[in-house]
Amino acid sequence: MNARTSLPSALLEQLQSIVGEQRVKTDDDSLQTWGLDWTKHFEPQPSVIVFPGTTEEVQAIVKLANEHQIPVTPSGGRTGLSAGAVAANGEIVISLDRMNKVLDFLPADRLVRIQSGVVTEQLQQYAEQQGLYYPVDFAAAGSSQMGGNIGTNAGGIKVIHYGMTREWVLGLTVVTGKGDILHLNKGMIKNATGYALHQLFIGSEGTLGIVTEAEIKLTRAPQDLKVLVLSVPDFSAVMPILHAFQQRIDLTAFEFFNQVALEKVLAHGHAQRPFETESPLYVLLEFEGRFEAVVDDAMQIFEHCMEQGWILDGVMSQSQAQAQALWHLREGISETIAPFTPYKNDISVLITHVPAFIADVDAIVAANYPDFEVCWFGHIGDGNLHLNILKPANLTKDEFFEKCKVVNQFVFETVQKYNGSISAEHGVGMTKKDYLAYTRDVVEIGYMRELKKIFDPNGIMNPGKIFDL
Amino acid sequence: MNARTSLPSALLEQLQSIVGEQRVKTDDDSLQTWGLDWTKHFEPQPSVIVFPGTTEEVQAIVKLANEHQIPVTPSGGRTGLSAGAVAANGEIVISLDRMNKVLDFLPADRLVRIQSGVVTEQLQQYAEQQGLYYPVDFAAAGSSQMGGNIGTNAGGIKVIHYGMTREWVLGLTVVTGKGDILHLNKGMIKNATGYALHQLFIGSEGTLGIVTEAEIKLTRAPQDLKVLVLSVPDFSAVMPILHAFQQRIDLTAFEFFNQVALEKVLAHGHAQRPFETESPLYVLLEFEGRFEAVVDDAMQIFEHCMEQGWILDGVMSQSQAQAQALWHLREGISETIAPFTPYKNDISVLITHVPAFIADVDAIVAANYPDFEVCWFGHIGDGNLHLNILKPANLTKDEFFEKCKVVNQFVFETVQKYNGSISAEHGVGMTKKDYLAYTRDVVEIGYMRELKKIFDPNGIMNPGKIFDL
Repeated sequence: MNARTSLPSALLEQLQSIVGEQRVKTDDDSLQTWGLDWTKHFEPQPSVIVFPGTTEEVQAIVKLANEHQIPVTPSGGRTGLSAGAVAANGEIVISLDRMNKVLDFLPADRLVRIQSGVVTEQLQQYAEQQGLYYPVDFAAAGSSQMGGNIGTNAGGIKVIHYGMTREWVLGLTVVTGKGDILHLNKGMIKNATGYALHQLFIGSEGTLGIVTEAEIKLTRAPQDLKVLVLSVPDFSAVMPILHAFQQRIDLTAFEFFNQVALEKVLAHGHAQRPFETESPLYVLLEFEGRFEAVVDDAMQIFEHCMEQGWILDGVMSQSQAQAQALWHLREGISETIAPFTPYKNDISVLITHVPAFIADVDAIVAANYPDFEVCWFGHIGDGNLHLNILKPANLTKDEFFEKCKVVNQFVFETVQKYNGSISAEHGVGMTKKDYLAYTRDVVEIGYMRELKKIFDPNGIMNPGKIFDL
Repeated sequence: MNARTSLPSALLEQLQSIVGEQRVKTDDDSLQTWGLDWTKHFEPQPSVIVFPGTTEEVQAIVKLANEHQIPVTPSGGRTGLSAGAVAANGEIVISLDRMNKVLDFLPADRLVRIQSGVVTEQLQQYAEQQGLYYPVDFAAAGSSQMGGNIGTNAGGIKVIHYGMTREWVLGLTVVTGKGDILHLNKGMIKNATGYALHQLFIGSEGTLGIVTEAEIKLTRAPQDLKVLVLSVPDFSAVMPILHAFQQRIDLTAFEFFNQVALEKVLAHGHAQRPFETESPLYVLLEFEGRFEAVVDDAMQIFEHCMEQGWILDGVMSQSQAQAQALWHLREGISETIAPFTPYKNDISVLITHVPAFIADVDAIVAANYPDFEVCWFGHIGDGNLHLNILKPANLTKDEFFEKCKVVNQFVFETVQKYNGSISAEHGVGMTKKDYLAYTRDVVEIGYMRELKKIFDPNGIMNPGKIFDL
C-alpha cells in the first residue's frame, strides 16, 4: 500500500493552509527521514510531514486529524531507541523542527521558557550563557529535542545527582489528542491545585497529545568536576564503594562497565588503558571538586576502599582534559560496539538487586549461548543497566536476532523477578510494547488505556506506541 | 440529621468483620476527632471511623463502600489546612493511624518502604538512625502522616534545595476508588514504561484512592547548617540578594517575613531582637557550611550585598543553638499570630513576580481596609507566600471573616493576573474549591473530572474535595 494515496487531497490542502505550502512535505526522502527515529527495525510509511510554527498551528492540525480520523505522530530529534517516533502506518507526522526557540528567561526563577523543538545541547548552551546549567545529558544531546526528552522522561549520565527530565519540567503547554490547548503548571515550584497533569504528559511518548512549549528549571553550574576510574575485582565490591563515597560526597555520576566494554573501546583507538592489569569491572565516578576538602575526602575514601580490597587500582583526573579522557572510556562504548551489531537492552532494577540481577543474566546467557560476548555498562548509581550482546562473527544478523529474541524472554523474566523495568529511560514505543506487562501489571495497564481515552478519544495520537488500543 | 443512623447495620458488621470489632468506632468523641483536620470551619459528621491494618483491609473497606455507595474519607495526621480530611457528610473515615510501620530499608538505594500512616517526624528520625536524611520538613511534621503529605504533595521550608514531597516518592501502593490494589513504580529511579500513575496520586488529596504504602528516597544529611538573617530595606533588594547567593552557594532555605511578623514574634517572648533598628523586611537564608571556603564565600557575598545597599544589617549563626534561635524568628510566626484570628492564604507566583504581587495585594488591602494589619511571610525562594491578615480588635470574628471574603476575591484575582496558584502547598480540599478556576482553567478541570471517574467511577473517594462532581 502506498500510504500517501490514502490521504484525502482536501486534507493536504487544509494542512497547507494551516502551515503554508512549503511546510507540507510528501516526497519520498522526507517521508523516509521524518518517518523514522534511531530504531532501524521498521519501515517508515507516513502520509505527510508537516512543520507547524506555533501551538495554534499544532492544534489546528490535530483537530483536522480528528475530523479525518487519521493518526498523528509527533516528531522531535528522532533519536529515540524504542521506535516511539516511527510513523509506519500512514500517519501525519508533526515535526517540531521549526519550533526551536527559547522564548523567555526569568533569572530570579532560573526558569527558561522554550518551544519543544529546542535541541538539548542548545538548551545546555543557552543555560551556560546565563551562567547556569541544564543537567540532563546523554549521548544524543546534540540532536534530541526537548519535546522528545519530555515524552520519554529522558535520563542519562547525571541522574544520580540531578534526576530525570521530569525534575526539571515546571510547566508544559500541550495540545491534547482531542485538540485542546492546556497550559499546565505554568512554571511553578509549588502548586497544590489538583491533579498534576503535566506529570502525566512527561513520559507519555506522544500518546496523549503533543508538547509544544515547556518551562524548564536551570541550576548552578558545577565547578571543577573530578573523575575517578576504579578497577574493581567483582560486583560484590561495587555497592560498598558506592556507599562509602555517597556517605560524604555528593556524586554527580556513578557508572560502570565491564572488561569486554573496556577492551572494545581501547581497540577502537583514541583511548588510553587506565590500568596495567585487567580487572572484570570498572567504576567511573564524578563529583564537584571545587573545595580542596572534598578532594581530600575523596582520596581518604579511596584509600579506605583499597584497604578493604574493594578497589584494585584507581586514577583521578588532574585536569579537564584528563576528566574527558576518562569519561571517554565509558561514553565511547556505544559507538565502539556498534559494528558488532549489538543486541541492546535498557533495563532497571533497584540498586540493591543489581549484583544478583547481573549474575542471573550472565548465567542464562552463558548456559544458553556460551559463544555470545556480553558487554555490560550503565548508570549503576540509579540501577539502570545497558545489556549489550555482541553478535558472534559466525552468525548472520537474522540468526543472531532470532536467538536474541529468546534471550529477551529470559532477560525480561529476570527483570520481573526483581520487580524492575523493561525500559529504564528509552521508553516503550513499539519495540517494548509486547513486554510491558513484565513491569506494569494488567490492571495498571487497564487504567493507562482509560487515561488515554480521555485525552485522545479517537485514538489518533501516536497509535501503536506503549500499547495497542 | 444524625449521619450514623443512615448507615446500614449490615455494613457496620461487615466493617467489623474486616478490621475487628474494636477497630470500628461510632462514638461521638471519635466521630468528632477523626472527622476533622486543622481546618476548623466545618462540622464533622462522619458515619463511622475504621482503622485498617493492611492494604487488603483497606481494599475490602473500599469495595464495601462501593457496594453501599457510601463516601469514604482517608484520614492521616489530620493537620491539613484546606479541609481535605474533613468528613462532613456521613463518610466512612478510613484512618491510617495503625498503618504506621517502617517496612524495609535498602541502604544501597537509600530507600525506605513505609506504611502511609508513618508520621513525618518518625520518618525523619528513622532516616537519622540510618545516617541519612528525609528533607521535607514543616511545622506539622510531628503529627502529619506521610500519606497525607503525599496526598497534598507537601512542601515546607527546604523546598528551594530539596523540592516537594513528590521528588522523594519513588513508589506507591494504592487502593483505587474502584477497589484495585496498584503497586506503582516500585521504588525505581528510572522507569520509562508508560504513564506515571504514581505522580497522579501525589497531590490528589485522596480523591482517586488511598495510598497505603510508599517507597521513599532518603539523602545525605546536611552538616553544619549556617543561618543568616538579613534586614532588607525593600522588596526590590530581595531578588538581587537571592541571585548573589545562589550563584555560588546551594541554599537550603530562603525565607522572608515582614516587620509586622517580627514584632509579633518578639512580643510573644522567647526570641531576641536580631537588629537594633527596624526594617520593613527580613530574609532568612540557610546553607551547608561544612567547608570553611563556603562560609568565607557567604561572607564575601554578604559584604557585596551590603555595599550595594541591598542589605542593611545581618547576623550569622555561630552555633546550632544560634541557628535554631534565628529560625525561631521565622518559624514562630504562625503560632504567635494565632490569637489574632488571622485570615490565612497560601499562594504562589513565580519568584520574578513576587515583588509586584505583594505590592498589588498591599495596595488593595490598604485602600479597602486601612485598619487591617498584614503579616507576610513565606518561602520566597520558591515563590510561596503566606498572606495573613490580622483581625482588628474592634471587629467580631464573623464581621472580620465576612470582610476577608471580599479580600479573598481581590487576592485570587491578583494571583490569576500573575498566573499563580491559589494553593501552593496546602491543597484545595473544601476551602479552596470555589476558587480552583483562578489557577486551573475550565478545560483542565474538565480533564481532572474525567480522570477521577476512571479511578473512582462511583464517586465515593473523598467527594466534595478539590471540585464537586
